[in-house]
Order: sequence, then structure tokens, then C-alpha cells
Amino acid sequence: MQREALHHVPHSNWAYLYDKDTFHLRVRTGKANVDQVFALTGDKYDWEHYHEEHRMQKIASDQFFDYWETAVKPENKRFSYAFRMQAGDETLWMTETGFFTEPPAPPEGYYERPYIHEADLFKAPEWAKSAVFYQIMPDRFANGDPGKDPVNVAAWGDTPTAESFFGGDLQGIMDHLDYLARLGITAIYLTPIFEAPSNHKYDTTDYRKVDPGFGDAELLKKLVTASHAKGIRVVLDAVFNHISAQSPQFQSVIKHGEQSEYAGWFHIHNFPVKVTDGKPNYDAFGFFADMPKLNTTNPEARKYLLDTAGYWLKEVGIDGWRLDVANEIDHTFWRDFRKLVKDINPEAFIIGEVWSDSMRWLNGDQFDSVMNYPLTSRLIEYLNNGDINAGRFGGQLGNLLMRYPQQANEVLFNLLASHDTPRILTQLGGNPGKLKLAAAFLFTFTGTPCIFYGDEIGLEGEGDPDCRKCMIWEEERQNRDLFESYQSLIRLRKAFPALQTGRFRILTADPQQRAFVYERVDENAHFVISLNPSEQPATLRLPLEDRFQDALNGEKLIPSDGQMVLDLAPYGYKILIKADG
Amino acid sequence: MQREALHHVPHSNWAYLYDKDTFHLRVRTGKANVDQVFALTGDKYDWEHYHEEHRMQKIASDQFFDYWETAVKPENKRFSYAFRMQAGDETLWMTETGFFTEPPAPPEGYYERPYIHEADLFKAPEWAKSAVFYQIMPDRFANGDPGKDPVNVAAWGDTPTAESFFGGDLQGIMDHLDYLARLGITAIYLTPIFEAPSNHKYDTTDYRKVDPGFGDAELLKKLVTASHAKGIRVVLDAVFNHISAQSPQFQSVIKHGEQSEYAGWFHIHNFPVKVTDGKPNYDAFGFFADMPKLNTTNPEARKYLLDTAGYWLKEVGIDGWRLDVANEIDHTFWRDFRKLVKDINPEAFIIGEVWSDSMRWLNGDQFDSVMNYPLTSRLIEYLNNGDINAGRFGGQLGNLLMRYPQQANEVLFNLLASHDTPRILTQLGGNPGKLKLAAAFLFTFTGTPCIFYGDEIGLEGEGDPDCRKCMIWEEERQNRDLFESYQSLIRLRKAFPALQTGRFRILTADPQQRAFVYERVDENAHFVISLNPSEQPATLRLPLEDRFQDALNGEKLIPSDGQMVLDLAPYGYKILIKADG
Repeated sequence: MQREALHHVPHSNWAYLYDKDTFHLRVRTGKANVDQVFALTGDKYDWEHYHEEHRMQKIASDQFFDYWETAVKPENKRFSYAFRMQAGDETLWMTETGFFTEPPAPPEGYYERPYIHEADLFKAPEWAKSAVFYQIMPDRFANGDPGKDPVNVAAWGDTPTAESFFGGDLQGIMDHLDYLARLGITAIYLTPIFEAPSNHKYDTTDYRKVDPGFGDAELLKKLVTASHAKGIRVVLDAVFNHISAQSPQFQSVIKHGEQSEYAGWFHIHNFPVKVTDGKPNYDAFGFFADMPKLNTTNPEARKYLLDTAGYWLKEVGIDGWRLDVANEIDHTFWRDFRKLVKDINPEAFIIGEVWSDSMRWLNGDQFDSVMNYPLTSRLIEYLNNGDINAGRFGGQLGNLLMRYPQQANEVLFNLLASHDTPRILTQLGGNPGKLKLAAAFLFTFTGTPCIFYGDEIGLEGEGDPDCRKCMIWEEERQNRDLFESYQSLIRLRKAFPALQTGRFRILTADPQQRAFVYERVDENAHFVISLNPSEQPATLRLPLEDRFQDALNGEKLIPSDGQMVLDLAPYGYKILIKADG
Repeated sequence: MQREALHHVPHSNWAYLYDKDTFHLRVRTGKANVDQVFALTGDKYDWEHYHEEHRMQKIASDQFFDYWETAVKPENKRFSYAFRMQAGDETLWMTETGFFTEPPAPPEGYYERPYIHEADLFKAPEWAKSAVFYQIMPDRFANGDPGKDPVNVAAWGDTPTAESFFGGDLQGIMDHLDYLARLGITAIYLTPIFEAPSNHKYDTTDYRKVDPGFGDAELLKKLVTASHAKGIRVVLDAVFNHISAQSPQFQSVIKHGEQSEYAGWFHIHNFPVKVTDGKPNYDAFGFFADMPKLNTTNPEARKYLLDTAGYWLKEVGIDGWRLDVANEIDHTFWRDFRKLVKDINPEAFIIGEVWSDSMRWLNGDQFDSVMNYPLTSRLIEYLNNGDINAGRFGGQLGNLLMRYPQQANEVLFNLLASHDTPRILTQLGGNPGKLKLAAAFLFTFTGTPCIFYGDEIGLEGEGDPDCRKCMIWEEERQNRDLFESYQSLIRLRKAFPALQTGRFRILTADPQQRAFVYERVDENAHFVISLNPSEQPATLRLPLEDRFQDALNGEKLIPSDGQMVLDLAPYGYKILIKADG
């Protein structure tokens, strides 16, 4: 047995509480190196009366490894455990102490899950599991009240620059709630709406005031109420990493230096604050002098920001916060933040902006979810790069799914694009067929999908500012075919919990092929999804013995000789659902 | 290159903040499979101006792997990073995304350390790094006030049973502070001293009252003051996992059932509370009905316990808490606990009782240290089992050191035995020579050493209750030779910070040999420690070119031809220190 490949870490994504009674254990073995893995569990205080053997399931594989998982429901809320691996005639035991070729006497040296406390459970809001999100940049979505337009407003649809304003506002969103409802959206995430000089408003000057160009608190309340009435939740963007240099707080520091009551709100290297050769003598977002970084460990600054988070939750009844540059803020702040937010609304959804491995924030004490850019980039690479075979893509998905606990995976914020990336259609070479394929994946994969406004009607654009184009509202200029594909994919996802939280399992991920086939399964439905990211049509022979039907058009598919033959058009996909009985 | 062996996890023991400016990166490679590893770091917002290449040092090895480490001091408090490995002509890059044979363009897909906050730093009290602890069971250490003896007191030195009381008390400890000072002790850890029916007092009835058999709050205050005057700190035992069934709180539940104001303080399956076939219908410590488990998430119970922790810190000025059964209490409790304790006394030392992997508690938000039983068991196995060669023991040490951040390793609570294990002398076959060898290791290894009372004068005993024998005070019945060995080892450790926090490095750990040789090095001193855990003498040839001297007896040792020849007696050890100049 390949011992170097064996891996398990207690109290981590390898061993975590899934719900208040159920603990998940995972273990890694060398690829195709081990036939079967068992988890041996028991109560360390009375092993004889309380011990079990769990046959683990192989739930993922990547280039080098197989991953095994099992669920344990310990009678006394605690257990110790070891793993037993079988490979041909060879048997190996693995405990926290090491490897054994004879069974090590329990529980000494075993891994431990000492006592299960619901208080330590990472629990995301239930609604987030079935939500379909839509991300809106208010300035670019719809202009509902031209009376509120900034003086320097550009004509709707002009090419955006870093400085342009287009007059979009909250009323514009309100006016198009029906559009969102028709598309099937159940939650919107608004990029910042609080007072700020820029068009993107990531440089807040007043956290307690809706930007006058967008509306006011009253209108925000109306928007939230109207959204809720349509079954749409509202998540706002909390920009707590930095503030505008124009904010009264930073202006005070500019004016009064060390004497300012706000001097401690920032990370200032020396006084007076200044910018030399483009580099500020204070910490900022990146090196942007106009966005000084806030000192979130300063008690007054922390209180102000936390009170802000509470204020909008209570005042307006929003449903959660998306946290800008969340990974550059200290963990102690986020722990206080979560406590406050969940005390006010246990169902509030907390999504951090973290582009890289986020396990540190997903232990139940900080975020519910993070923006899942790693998935985005792997998907786009797979669709665009003919050298990425299905085996490799499947391995990457397996690898990503093993990064986090299952309950985190179920609500990871999956997105094809955002205001911080080029438009997805542009990234896919302007090919709407490829975009439909990407969307088919987005809406049938584990995690909470989010659409960047306009992607569903074929908006194109390179990186910022080009991707932040105005929404197109004239139907004749929208790609309605694309819109309808989104609509039907969303409808399907919402109709079947299996597509939300059902088990993800790879059916075929052949290293010789580009086409990738996976399943989503729960007790009520069994889906088989096939993707063909190729200019060529593909004929797949799937090892399926049951009758299926096309979940989108109802076409019946009958296997013969234990095989289902499936023809996929270039960039085609098929979502099959197992027929009853 | 053996890709399956390569391992790194961001935000973990593989990537952690060591002090407010210094970040440690570790990476694992296949054993002897890679020649050199570099960490490539840079600022993701301006890679061109801020990037560095760090040659990593191989700091440990075990059976399958080599471990590499480097320190990074990022100019802008943030960095992204990748690793570059060289093996012969082969070069491989590793990022969070995977492996590359061509340099991947930074920073996309790189690992991230977004922003370094001192608030997130795991920082243990400085004093703990140089402390030498002594664990005392008050009932068994010394009887200073026979007037306080329980009615059923046994004669001092009788064979202990589970129920016996011997009349030891706080005055007894006070009377022997000089003894402890002579031994070189700088901190004592007392097993519980609060009111409780048992002799061990792990079944508290009143957390705010010193057990009358031991003394009172006034006397405790005196003891702490007198200890401090001798440079000895005092750590008490916090038994917050469970309480005595005799406590007023649990008695109220027995009496009033669900109506009791304390019903929520426990985990009761159904009312009335009862014990059937020895198993209580409420959660307990193990299955001990007389120690009902406390519900630490109940707000009133939590407040009572936290207030208790604060009370003794403030009231008596104790220097820390050892936390009984710490791993069975929820993490949210310990986070609140740490905040409270450190607010009162930032220098308070928090030691959790966790017998297995404790990383989850050592992230800076919960404990400073844990009782390092995994080290104890590996050391004893190495000393007792002739099949454990030096290579294997060295690998086990490397493996343990890689489990935690360096600042945790520096204060891990290292012990040869405790009230929960057989006496160390007994475990080592009653051979005082072997015990000296074990002590030589304890006092020259990384981590805070703790002596279980009486081990230093040769107390023997099997597991509880036999290990909880009365201390022997008649010098003629003490093993004075052993005592003096302890004394000189402690003196040495205290004189040289290199033995406390200096780098640990294996010099020779030959799989063909039993003798094990390691170094402890800092900028001021360089130690070479050799252990011979064998009935046979050993002659070692060490690859040393400098002059050394025996740190304990001053004997000079001069190498010839780049070799130092060292003769070790059976179970002998030598601690060499590099001579000046």
C-alpha cells in the first residue's frame, strides 16, 4: 500500500460535524491503490459496548488520490476512530500515531472526536442551499429615477470607463423585480449602495446612508419589502476592509494627524499622512491611496462597523452580507461579526470575498460561504482548453469538493463571472453555445449559483471597466435564446433538491476524452448530466441500465445491453433524469 | 519527483504567523526525494516591486517525508506564494492550483497570506517558554496543617486507594516552597483545590470556595504571594467539563427536575434524572454518574464558569489555568474564556488537557498549550522498546514538531507522567538510570517541562490510585542522586535559552542504531545532546569539528579528523556545549 499517499487530519475538512448528530470522516489513499477503507469508531470510555465499523465510500478521485467518506452518528456524542485499509491481501491500520499491520488496541493513539457540540456546528441558512442569486451593480442595472442621476451621467449603454456614471439606481432594480422573478431568481446581491464618490461605491464615505444617486433608506426598505414579496432575498455588500479617503474619518486624520480621534482607525506608518511616488504612508486596499485600510481591531472602528452591519439588518431587514476583501480583515473581527449578525437574524447569509483556499473562514465561526472563483477558473479552463481532458477536470472538481465540509460546499457561492472578471461570454470566445454549457454546469453542480447581471442575455465585455456595462433592456437586443436556457436550467434546479444538495458523483471522466458525465442523486431523484466542451459532436456510451428522460425536453431514453448511447451536439449538454419505476 | 508526497495547506500549521512580523511557511516532500525547495513570495498588488525567493531549510524528516521551513517578513504585511522544488535536473512549481513544470505567472492560483493582523497571532506568555513546572496533588504532597485533615485521614505514606485521604493541604505546599525553589521550579500546577467530595477534587461542589481540607481563599492568596516572592508562578486546574452530582446545581435538578433553574446547565436526556444499569440518563464525564457534564453553551452556566475563571485570576492573582477534559467542551466557550482571561491578565498561561492532536485549539483563539502526552508515549516507547531505532524515534519527533506552529511547540506542556498515568520510574522498569535519561531529554527538548511531584526523588507507582502516592519527605528515603540530576538538568535548561527556544535539529538518527543525537541551537549557544537508551555502552562518532565541553561537568572534548568520539554508559547521556572561540 502506498503509505505516503494516506492522509487524514482530525478537526478539519477531513473530520467535521455535518449536522448536530452526524459526523463526516474522510480519508485519502493513493489512486486505485486501495480496495476498501473502513472507519473503526468507538467510545473511548466504553469501547466494548460502543464500537462500530463503517465501510467508507469512494466519493472523489483526482490525479494522484482517491477520497473516501463515511457518516458517523455516535450514540454518546463522542468517538475515537482509526481507519483500516484493504488492498488485496494486505491490511493496514492507520491511527493518529501511525501505521500498523496488526490491529492497534483501541482507543490509545486513535484519532479523537471528543464531544459533539451543536454550538460548534457550521450551519449555513437552509434557504441558501436552494437559492439562485443574481449580482447587480446598481449604477449599471437600470435607471428608474433619472431625477437622482449624478450631474455627469453618461448615456445608457455608452462604453464604460473607470469614471463613468450611468444613473442606475434602486428604483431601477425595483422596476425590474418582475424580470428577475421571471428568470427564476430568488436572491439578489447588490454591490455597494452606501454613499461613496465612485461609480462602484467600494470607497464608502458614509456606511449609514444610501448613496443619494441610488436612493435613500426608505427606498431601500421598499425594495427589500417588494423583493421579499416576490420571494427574492436581498444581500448587501459590506466594504469593511477600507473606507474612502474622502470619508470624514480619514479627512479628520489628514487634518489633525495623530491628534485626530480617528487616528487609531487606520494603519498609519507615520504622520502626517501623505502619498509619495504613488505609495501612501498608510496601509490601503492594494496601493490605492484613496482607499485607506481600516484598523478593524481598533475598538471604536470595530464597533462602528459592527453596528453598521446590525443597523441594516434590523432597519431594513436585509438577508445577509457579502464581505468585500474579507480575507484581509482579522479573524477576531469576523467572529464578532458572525455572532452579531446571527443574533439578529440566524437566517442571514454571510458570503466572504476570498479567492483562494478559504477553510480558515469556514469552520462555523466566521462565514457561511465564499465566492468560489477557484471553481470558475477551472471550469473556464476546461471549456476553453482542449488539452484539459475529462479525467483532469473531474479530478479538479473532486479536489475542490474535498477542500471544505459538505455543508460549505452546498452553499459555496458559484459564479461564472463578476464585476471583477471579464464577462463570461467574452471569456468563452463570444460563443453562446459554450455559455449555455457553462450555465448547465453551474445550475447542476453543488453550491449556490449566482448570475452576474446581463450574462443571461449575452452581455459581453473584457475586464473592468468593460465588464461593468449597462444592462440591455430592449428585448430585441437581448439574446432571448440564452435567457430561455437560463430560465429552464433555473427552473429545473429549483424543482429538484437533488440538483441542490444531492450527492455529486462522477459517472465517466475519461482521460482520453473531453466529454464529462456526472450524477446528482438524492432519495427522490437521480440525474445524469453530460457535457461536451468541443467543436465536434460526441457520442457517449454511458453505463446506465435504467430508463431515463431528458429533464429539459422530456425525451425518453432507453438503454440497451446496459448502455445508454447519447449523442451530444458541439458544445452540447444533456441533463437526464431517471424515469419512475 | 514524488508528487503524491508534496503537501502544504495554507492557514494552518503549514503556514502561520510566528510573531507580528514573521510568517513561517512549511512544505513536505518525499523523503530524500528533493534536493532543494524555494518559497517564492510577493505582493499580489505589485508583484514586480515586491517579490522574493526564500531558500527553505530542511528542518525535520520522518519515515516517508522531509519537512522544509522558511521565515518570511513581508514588507506590506501580505504576500502570495508558491514553492519551487529542485531534484537533479527536474524543477517543479507547486501553487494552490496544482503542479507546473513551467513557472506559473504570479499571483493567480498562488497560495495567499492576505494580510497579517497581530490580533490573529497565536502568542503564548513569554514566561512559559523558560518555565519549569511541577505538578502537585495537594492531598498527597504535604500535610502542613493537621487541624484541617478530613476525619477519615489515612497515615501519610499508606498505600492509596481510590477513596483515601492523606491530609495534604495548601499549608503543606507553602512549607515546601524552599524545596521547590532548590529543585529549580519556576511554576506549579495544582490539581483541583476547590470544594469537592473526592480526594482528587475533580468533582467540584463549589467553584468559588477552596476545599476546607486544603485551606481557604486567604491561605491560597498567601501561597500565591509567597510563591511569587520565590519566582514561582501558580496555575490552577479548571474543571469546567463536569461538576459533582453533589453540587447544589445538580441536586436542584434531582429535586425539581425540569422545573429546576439549573435544568439547562446539564445535558439531560429525560426527567427525572436517574441511573440505570450504571448508565446515567444524562451526559457525564465518561459514564460516571457522579460527574454530570455541564452544558457550557447554557448562558447562565457559561457565565458562572467564566466568572469563576476571572474571579480567581483577580482575587488571588494566579498565573493561569490548566483546563481539565478541555477537548470535551465547545470551542465557543474556550474562545470566550481566552478573551476573558487575557483581558484580566495577558500573561496568564492556558493549558488544555487534550491527549490527541490539538491543532484546533492552538490557532491563537483558544489555548496557549496542551498536555503533550503524545510526546510522553513516544519517548517511553523509545526508551523501553529495543526495536525502536533512533531513526524511527527521530522521525516521530519531527512528525510531532510539524503538527503545530513553532510558538506552540515552544510552550507545549511536556511531561513524563501525571496523576493520570503510572509513575515514570515504574514505566521505566524501576531503573533510575533510565529515568535520568528521560529527564535529560525532557529538559533539553522543545517545550515547557513539567515534573509530577515525587518523580524527582524516585516515587514509584502503577496507574491511579497507585501513582497518587504520598510524597516522601525523609531525605534518607529519597533518591538524592536522582534529585541532584534533576537539579542540574533544570539549572542547565534555565541558564540557556537555547535549550528552551533554540532550534531543534537531529544530528544523527541512524535506523541501525538505538543512540540518538540532536542539537539545540540559538545565536548564543550550541548544544549537542546524545542519548543511549540501551543496557549496553555505546561509542558514538559524531560529525563535529568544533571543540565542545560537557555542559554538566565541564569536561573538554576535542574532535579529531572532523569526528567527535563519545562513550556513553548504559542508559547514559551527554549534553555537550560548544566551547567559545
